Amino acid sequence: MQARLTDDGIDVVVCFKPEHSFYITGFSPIIYSQPMIAILTPNHEPIMLVHALRDEHSRSSSWVRDIRLFGAWGDKKTAGADWQTALTSILHELGVADKKIGVEEEFISITCRRQLEDMLPKAEFVDVSQLIERCRLTKDPDEVLHARVAARIADVGMEAAIAALREGGTERDVCVTAMHEMNKFWAGRYPNVEVCDFGSFEGGVHNGLWVWALSGPRTFLNCDNPTQRRPLRGETVSLLSWTVANGMHAEIERTVAIGPLPDVSKRALDIILEIREEVDELMKPGTPWRDLFEKTRERLESLGYGTHTPGRIGHSIGLGAHERASIDAKSRLVLEPGMIVTLEPHIRIPSVCQTQISDTVLITDTGREYLTIATGGYIEI
Amino acid sequence: MQARLTDDGIDVVVCFKPEHSFYITGFSPIIYSQPMIAILTPNHEPIMLVHALRDEHSRSSSWVRDIRLFGAWGDKKTAGADWQTALTSILHELGVADKKIGVEEEFISITCRRQLEDMLPKAEFVDVSQLIERCRLTKDPDEVLHARVAARIADVGMEAAIAALREGGTERDVCVTAMHEMNKFWAGRYPNVEVCDFGSFEGGVHNGLWVWALSGPRTFLNCDNPTQRRPLRGETVSLLSWTVANGMHAEIERTVAIGPLPDVSKRALDIILEIREEVDELMKPGTPWRDLFEKTRERLESLGYGTHTPGRIGHSIGLGAHERASIDAKSRLVLEPGMIVTLEPHIRIPSVCQTQISDTVLITDTGREYLTIATGGYIEI
Repeated sequence: MQARLTDDGIDVVVCFKPEHSFYITGFSPIIYSQPMIAILTPNHEPIMLVHALRDEHSRSSSWVRDIRLFGAWGDKKTAGADWQTALTSILHELGVADKKIGVEEEFISITCRRQLEDMLPKAEFVDVSQLIERCRLTKDPDEVLHARVAARIADVGMEAAIAALREGGTERDVCVTAMHEMNKFWAGRYPNVEVCDFGSFEGGVHNGLWVWALSGPRTFLNCDNPTQRRPLRGETVSLLSWTVANGMHAEIERTVAIGPLPDVSKRALDIILEIREEVDELMKPGTPWRDLFEKTRERLESLGYGTHTPGRIGHSIGLGAHERASIDAKSRLVLEPGMIVTLEPHIRIPSVCQTQISDTVLITDTGREYLTIATGGYIEI
Repeated sequence: MQARLTDDGIDVVVCFKPEHSFYITGFSPIIYSQPMIAILTPNHEPIMLVHALRDEHSRSSSWVRDIRLFGAWGDKKTAGADWQTALTSILHELGVADKKIGVEEEFISITCRRQLEDMLPKAEFVDVSQLIERCRLTKDPDEVLHARVAARIADVGMEAAIAALREGGTERDVCVTAMHEMNKFWAGRYPNVEVCDFGSFEGGVHNGLWVWALSGPRTFLNCDNPTQRRPLRGETVSLLSWTVANGMHAEIERTVAIGPLPDVSKRALDIILEIREEVDELMKPGTPWRDLFEKTRERLESLGYGTHTPGRIGHSIGLGAHERASIDAKSRLVLEPGMIVTLEPHIRIPSVCQTQISDTVLITDTGREYLTIATGGYIEI
């Protein structure tokens, strides 16, 4: 990211978006009711500006050594009573208060932008939303390590969910049981892994290990909280296991058949499983993302499912469960080692059936590696 | 809210913030990777604009009858290929495209605002952030009902956490056990309650029932993911149980003593419990929020804890776990029936001890009602 700032002649970046400030600092305060600001120049180590009440927490979690405080908290010395004062003084200290300042125009509010303009009347503001997202697309070894952990936990959730479904559970039985198995696995196995997620400014996400289940006609809702509904024979159940480990996300999704399926549903599942294998052969460095989508579209059209082609067949995953980049017809990206994407072509025939199969896949130097490896293929119980 | 729009001469409000669009529509798509827009005029029923893939989900969840779609999804008919086109056409249809349009300046991004200005060149945009937050402050009977459910689940989590601590568990044992008890209680008891929370634009929060535990020196972190640390005799443990039920939040927090405490910690806890009782007497309609804070400050100062006075002693809670309004020295609010606040005066003596006791309290016509009622007072195990 520092190299890109140099290329673009940007003197400093000021990040407010939780995923972005975490990207630069490795710190999530969990609760974002006070801003957590990451400051990056092309040449300095990153600086982190947090509310004084996050002093101990940030020091215990971040790799950033230059941590500044704002606000009032007991007898702590801070750089200003509010973040505006503290940030202004830091940017003056860095000599960039009247230079080219990168901000997240796709994220920060109008109010925040107005405050920045008032604080820094001589600065030139430029949008760095896309620059940061492009950097995030390719994961470093540390991020891949955490994605692997997230995938292991997601696999445990999926296996537990399938087992609970086999026991005849309701949607809620399946989710509650599977989430508990994931939590126990995480709690015992990974002492240094945090599973908190990025929440809204009004809340914090303390535990981001989730399994969802949608049965029968409810599969068409795509996502919903589980109910007390018990799946019926001949229906499918969409199982979704979503996890986070030290900021990195993984997802695995499976469609499970309850007993033999009607032909139309069975055929849709078989076709999607075939298409996945064909798309899989393209999953290697150098393949345009668009080609993965076009392969899916061609196959669906040739088999008579053209009107049910989805808008995309996967997306980048990392610090976001849904990062911006989609595997769709408009993508101009090319697969590179270190990218992590979900692979999820679906068939959705309204009121008839809907498949929901996804894996988290790492692009390697020579091909791809499935990070999620729980039971796949055609699953019937 | 419609009355306030009339008072302020605002012709339409367009809400993007998840908590706000839920406030108007009762619908959370859980995943916000596509915007979910609520449109409210002083005289019409609300209109909801969602991506076509949320069609079934929104119809099954919302009280709004006028649901419009954007995007492409199978053979669904939509009002436009993107939200911008669809929203523009709706505002023209309502006859307000060139009128006074309320937007959330404290939330929507610079990019979003620029798009709105391009779409609606003749409109006058005004900020409605504060107007909406003021409306949210006073809860209606339906919101109170859901807050009660959230509080019941939070109580179950707290009792389970205290029990797990009694068994000698680590921070993680306590959290994992207590979250599972909450989930089982919810799953069996509340068929019509959803426990999904509002997440970021890159993720969705599927299950928002959380218990946190911070032991010994870790209490000073205020919030952190639980570790494998086992509390030691003479330490305190901060237990935090946070829940959500159909969008409404509750929190209960307790400080638990492991065996007899050193005098300094015991005294701090005793004093906070006393102060809570004194502040409690003021919890009724007509009391300025500031008075609750000042009462706490006076008492802490008179007892020699003046330098450890917190910045606030509670906050509004509802569709946000932390709504904007704080119980602090600057507040100009007055308690009204239907307000729900957390009551949480703390003493924090750096490196020595920190109390963490909070309840969710409803202001009634004549006084207050504690919605969270799990074990309180001085808790020693």
